[in-house]
Amino acid sequence: MLGNFSYLNATKLYFGDNSLEYLNEELPKYGKNVQLIYGGGSVKRNGIYDEVMKILLANGKNVVEDAGVMPNPTVDKLREGVRIARENKVDLLLAVGGGSCCDYAKAVSVSVNCDDDPWDKYYIRFEEPDCEIVPVACILTMAGTGSEMNAGAVITNHEAKLKIGHVFGENVMPKFSILNPKFTFSLPKRQMVAGIYDIFNHICEQYFSGEDDNTSDYIAEGLMRSLIHSSLIAIDDPENYEARSNIMWTATWALNTLISRGKTTDWMVHMLGQAVGAYTDATHGMTLAAVSLPYYRTIMPYGLNKFKRFAVEVWGVDPVGKSDEAIADEGLLAMEGWMKKLGLNMKISELGATPDMIEGIADATIILDGGYKVFTRDDVVKVLTESL
Amino acid sequence: MLGNFSYLNATKLYFGDNSLEYLNEELPKYGKNVQLIYGGGSVKRNGIYDEVMKILLANGKNVVEDAGVMPNPTVDKLREGVRIARENKVDLLLAVGGGSCCDYAKAVSVSVNCDDDPWDKYYIRFEEPDCEIVPVACILTMAGTGSEMNAGAVITNHEAKLKIGHVFGENVMPKFSILNPKFTFSLPKRQMVAGIYDIFNHICEQYFSGEDDNTSDYIAEGLMRSLIHSSLIAIDDPENYEARSNIMWTATWALNTLISRGKTTDWMVHMLGQAVGAYTDATHGMTLAAVSLPYYRTIMPYGLNKFKRFAVEVWGVDPVGKSDEAIADEGLLAMEGWMKKLGLNMKISELGATPDMIEGIADATIILDGGYKVFTRDDVVKVLTESL
Repeated sequence: MLGNFSYLNATKLYFGDNSLEYLNEELPKYGKNVQLIYGGGSVKRNGIYDEVMKILLANGKNVVEDAGVMPNPTVDKLREGVRIARENKVDLLLAVGGGSCCDYAKAVSVSVNCDDDPWDKYYIRFEEPDCEIVPVACILTMAGTGSEMNAGAVITNHEAKLKIGHVFGENVMPKFSILNPKFTFSLPKRQMVAGIYDIFNHICEQYFSGEDDNTSDYIAEGLMRSLIHSSLIAIDDPENYEARSNIMWTATWALNTLISRGKTTDWMVHMLGQAVGAYTDATHGMTLAAVSLPYYRTIMPYGLNKFKRFAVEVWGVDPVGKSDEAIADEGLLAMEGWMKKLGLNMKISELGATPDMIEGIADATIILDGGYKVFTRDDVVKVLTESL
Repeated sequence: MLGNFSYLNATKLYFGDNSLEYLNEELPKYGKNVQLIYGGGSVKRNGIYDEVMKILLANGKNVVEDAGVMPNPTVDKLREGVRIARENKVDLLLAVGGGSCCDYAKAVSVSVNCDDDPWDKYYIRFEEPDCEIVPVACILTMAGTGSEMNAGAVITNHEAKLKIGHVFGENVMPKFSILNPKFTFSLPKRQMVAGIYDIFNHICEQYFSGEDDNTSDYIAEGLMRSLIHSSLIAIDDPENYEARSNIMWTATWALNTLISRGKTTDWMVHMLGQAVGAYTDATHGMTLAAVSLPYYRTIMPYGLNKFKRFAVEVWGVDPVGKSDEAIADEGLLAMEGWMKKLGLNMKISELGATPDMIEGIADATIILDGGYKVFTRDDVVKVLTESL
């Protein structure tokens, strides 16, 4: 059954190989000072930085640089970004990059006009913004997090060994996002497949919850089938526009709140993966991949119907003459085979996690209760150990 | 491949059996004068009118009645609605009803401040609004058209024997819509199944176009599977909340522009059905049902791959050892069986169409070119004759 809910997602999307041109349509709607947010410089090497800068200057903007956003944006970097925004009275936060840059831009946007420290306010006390928000826009160069059309922002605190996400209100969603699949062509294969698994897991986290049978689950199955199909083309042919465009569009709809409407959701794979990330600083999608199968095999008996449905509808497992358990197992085996084809890290030890870290990672794992089995700390330790 | 596109849908949705309460949150955002738009009085019989009126008065609104919107809103009624809105300087057009009331409200909203006659401007010259738009909101009592989250408005001109739809820009979409599945419980079964087929056909019109294989098609398949599943529950148990809520949610996403992003679309079944409607004033969904199978069997050879995929992915046809034609045929046979189970009209003669009308209906049929076969007038006559 669809539970009661509201839905609003007012991010304007420009999608396609000409989409950057529309930056010219959007910029006049905002003030003069633009904080240009990007990461380690890949956008300078692939020329996207120059294209964007040209359009910004042609539109008479005063550009304030905010470079060096790391794959897992830190609270220290966030505080720096807030300082830059305040000192320059910025009117628009323009993120050029992947989910890290978009997340970071949103975290800055809700902090510029707030007096409290953003980490304490949003990631410890989980308060909502009570100050004016600086508008955010994204030019996406990597498909994965869905940050281009949602209100989430994950921030890492190395000191506290915590990596925490806060999903803000609809008003924090980007005002517009520019999605050009060709901007993802130059991404290293490891980053591409990590993004693909991040997308897949976003869908799983919303799909593997609740016994009900609702439209959201059917949409989720469609998205998973499309992603599996396109991912297998993209790993052999990374510049296949059809595959990369479908992957990019699937990423957006996998985490823009649509497929969670009226449903409970799980998110424990993200809680486990983020705790691993807090200790190893490993690529987000890889941390999810490495803990997923031990986690799903642990909860499968408690959500057998949905895992059976997953096997048949998503992986095309033939159920004839098989037990529910056998069908569900076959589905997870098919998923495992696909993950190995993509070349994902299937063990957290490959990501720098060591046995002596398990207790600490378990301490850093936030336990949520939306899944088929509410985890105990022992369950967390068990899954982390099996993931080693 | 996903072609280039933009996407923006800023309608706020409140969904669930408590959703009418949120009218209290939205009303303060608008001025004092509310034009209350409804149809033949069913909302008075089922008590929804009283509930809405109580909330409007409690919020200090000045309510202007605009009753009698017919199932196929006419241009004469539209001109009357525009007059009411002008005379009362209305600040909000609040439609309480099905797609007809929502469509009508949007047609009024783009006409209130325009000097030209709305029929000539929007339905003959297909111009865009160049005047200030009066905001529209919907309280939905029937699932089908998707009008609650799109910018379309179909208007009928009996004098000219034309029924034409205009899809306006994103700014014409309802500001908010309230979707309470229980409000659809009292709908007569004939209206319920007509709405269900309208939803299904909206998906087909967007699915059966283009040879490409993109995410939109996978989402469309998920929506069709969900609709088929829930419709078979709803025809036996119309007050099954799970089924009716899934049907209502599917209707919204079947026609809010999502599944047409990056795709070509067809819409010839709607062109044929609307021409039949212009002559018979028959229920929209029934006119679509009556012309669908002759139409799809005519274009199937030109889009065989998609019809084969439709059979396997939507209807679960086993393709093993069968020719593509045989698989595609089986899919349409399964669709026909489902339509008969729903009790849809499968012939336009059941809707009042007579052989002598065929030429006139063919003249009233707008021929579009997005489908697998671009129709000639002879093709139109052939399909209409087979539909008799």
